[in-house]
Amino acid sequence: GNYTITVLPGDGIGPEVTNEAINVLNAVASRFGHTFTYHKRLVGVAAIEAEGDAISDASLEVCLQSDAILFGAVGGLASYDGRHKVKPEQALFKLRKGLQFFANLRPVKPLNSLLSASPIKSEVLRGTDLLVVRELTGGLYYGHLEPPVPGKPSEIRQTEQGAVAIDTLLYSDAEIERILRVAFEAARDRKKKVTSVDKANVLSSSVLWRQVANRVAADYPDVTFEHLLVDACAMHLIRKPTNFDVIVTENLFGDILTDEASMLAGSMGMLPSASLGTRKTAHGRLGLYEPIHGSAPDITGQGKANPIAAILSAAMLLQYSLGLKSEAAAIEAAVEQVIQEGYRTEDLREEGAKVLNTQEMGQKIAAA
Amino acid sequence: GNYTITVLPGDGIGPEVTNEAINVLNAVASRFGHTFTYHKRLVGVAAIEAEGDAISDASLEVCLQSDAILFGAVGGLASYDGRHKVKPEQALFKLRKGLQFFANLRPVKPLNSLLSASPIKSEVLRGTDLLVVRELTGGLYYGHLEPPVPGKPSEIRQTEQGAVAIDTLLYSDAEIERILRVAFEAARDRKKKVTSVDKANVLSSSVLWRQVANRVAADYPDVTFEHLLVDACAMHLIRKPTNFDVIVTENLFGDILTDEASMLAGSMGMLPSASLGTRKTAHGRLGLYEPIHGSAPDITGQGKANPIAAILSAAMLLQYSLGLKSEAAAIEAAVEQVIQEGYRTEDLREEGAKVLNTQEMGQKIAAA
Ligand SMILES: CC(C)[C@H](C(=O)O)[C@@H](O)C(=O)O
Ligand SMILES: CC(C)[C@H](C(=O)O)[C@@H](O)C(=O)O
Repeated sequence: GNYTITVLPGDGIGPEVTNEAINVLNAVASRFGHTFTYHKRLVGVAAIEAEGDAISDASLEVCLQSDAILFGAVGGLASYDGRHKVKPEQALFKLRKGLQFFANLRPVKPLNSLLSASPIKSEVLRGTDLLVVRELTGGLYYGHLEPPVPGKPSEIRQTEQGAVAIDTLLYSDAEIERILRVAFEAARDRKKKVTSVDKANVLSSSVLWRQVANRVAADYPDVTFEHLLVDACAMHLIRKPTNFDVIVTENLFGDILTDEASMLAGSMGMLPSASLGTRKTAHGRLGLYEPIHGSAPDITGQGKANPIAAILSAAMLLQYSLGLKSEAAAIEAAVEQVIQEGYRTEDLREEGAKVLNTQEMGQKIAAA
Repeated sequence: GNYTITVLPGDGIGPEVTNEAINVLNAVASRFGHTFTYHKRLVGVAAIEAEGDAISDASLEVCLQSDAILFGAVGGLASYDGRHKVKPEQALFKLRKGLQFFANLRPVKPLNSLLSASPIKSEVLRGTDLLVVRELTGGLYYGHLEPPVPGKPSEIRQTEQGAVAIDTLLYSDAEIERILRVAFEAARDRKKKVTSVDKANVLSSSVLWRQVANRVAADYPDVTFEHLLVDACAMHLIRKPTNFDVIVTENLFGDILTDEASMLAGSMGMLPSASLGTRKTAHGRLGLYEPIHGSAPDITGQGKANPIAAILSAAMLLQYSLGLKSEAAAIEAAVEQVIQEGYRTEDLREEGAKVLNTQEMGQKIAAA
């Protein structure tokens, strides 16, 4: 078929890894007889410098007109030094909130041939296959401001006693319910277990979260359901990752837990993500696909970036937004094969590994 | 010398592990010629049932009159089911906030003879010796309510659109400054490195945190200083724990990161903590000492609880509140010796280990 994909390479290693994802998509196109049309747009620091905003409204419109969005990374060393009034991260917030991508899916499934790359023991890791469903348009990221402006410096108030900064963690039952439903639906296609993570012994928003979660769980009697406090979850993720199937949690907890969980997969450079909402396209749901890693300014331009997270994000794009399941599976199999053959990027360097640069790794996977 | 210690055993395994800590303190008393007088008070579920509050004002007054407070754990299976109007955790919040224990010190130093008990590879762990300095009287735990009432259910508001729950994350520059100073002072006695953890790419409170941290850091040119985002920290803690010396962070981030870090030490049952404020006593600073683990209702009364976290908390009590450094070191050496000899509790069960129950472990350590 014919599909249009908006490409937002962004900052740092974003363009490097996105390029490889596109090479792999092109390999899929020629192998399976599809046509992918790419619309490239600026995002992050480059967009701020060229267009005055981390992502322009015109670019958002292009996203809305396409079948899916492939995103690299934003941010940079100069992000927090006050040089730019607008932060590059605003692009992510605008995309997520503006296009209502409330469900962020982050699968963590360590490859068997990569277990040794993890700081965690192989016997603890073996069999791990979990999915974090992170709420992406609520909580501390957006507060109660209308329109929401995350990290707005004016929320730091000067008082007679000094400066005071306030962030607001707000959830409505409707927001909680819809993300819980995504988790339970996903669990039905998997190992039929949902772990809802909160801090109900401290937070009001977590008390509400628990109430709503219990209500939703009643609609899925075939799915095993449990609550877990976020601190305990941070521990159990490392202690016994095989205990988990679907983990569902609010925005910031999901952010922290997935970075932690990346260690199960050996490197942050391995983990893809999909952000989905309610918008439909001709072929499926509109979605934003991005590696969970950031722009990594320290290794930019050195060919050290691992493109696999971006390539696996492209696979999720094929599956969720374009409805191309076999094509997605072909990419996953190619990644597995190349890793199995002993090829690695810098982040996964090991005794006896054949270390490739970003481009070489992309080409190997495209070829496979 | 003569010292009075308030003992708050609390719920679940709290009394079991606290008993062993007291046995060890008694061994220290007779070996070093001190007199410890214990005042036991109710806290948690028992206090709610007997006194209508998770900790009574009279008990708080007893705490204030003593040289130090030894705390077990609070909470239970029934804590979140609405059976009690007051949550047992309120005791912790009242103690921490009421007595202004703003600095929670959580050292993480895996014992060499226990490296194999961790899910993390020994070669990653070896040499780990870090201290988390967690802010304990601010942030989402207390919001902007006056008086602060964490997790107050009435913060869930019924609106025409449904229920909405709000928590507030508030920090003043004064609160940030004093906890940063604790971290830098601690670093001077250690490896002279401070990592300040925040989420400055999203939260206003973290932007203020960074500003104040930079200001304080300027007063400690002899200490290496870095900022790290909380998600990255959750990853690096597992990836390369030896990179850290002192980690300083806000309340909830500290809660999550220390539970995660417990896996470095092999078990949550190994980690002690000290909560300090500005109140002085005749011998040092008033402090609250507690294991970082909870009440563990699932193993209560089975002799499976590991008393080492409570015993090491008693060692911190001797060091920080009573100024008894050699006595504290003697306890730490005893714990190390007993573990070295191959004795373990259930949580540390391994091939070839001599597994003891809670009491037996306490006695072995007291004897050593
Ligand atoms: C860049 C940052 C704002 C972002 C987030 O916190 O959501 C990132 O960490 C992520 O996980 O996508
Ligand atoms: C019991 C709970 C409220 C507490 C906290 O979150 O502070 C605990 O997890 C801790 O770390 O001391």
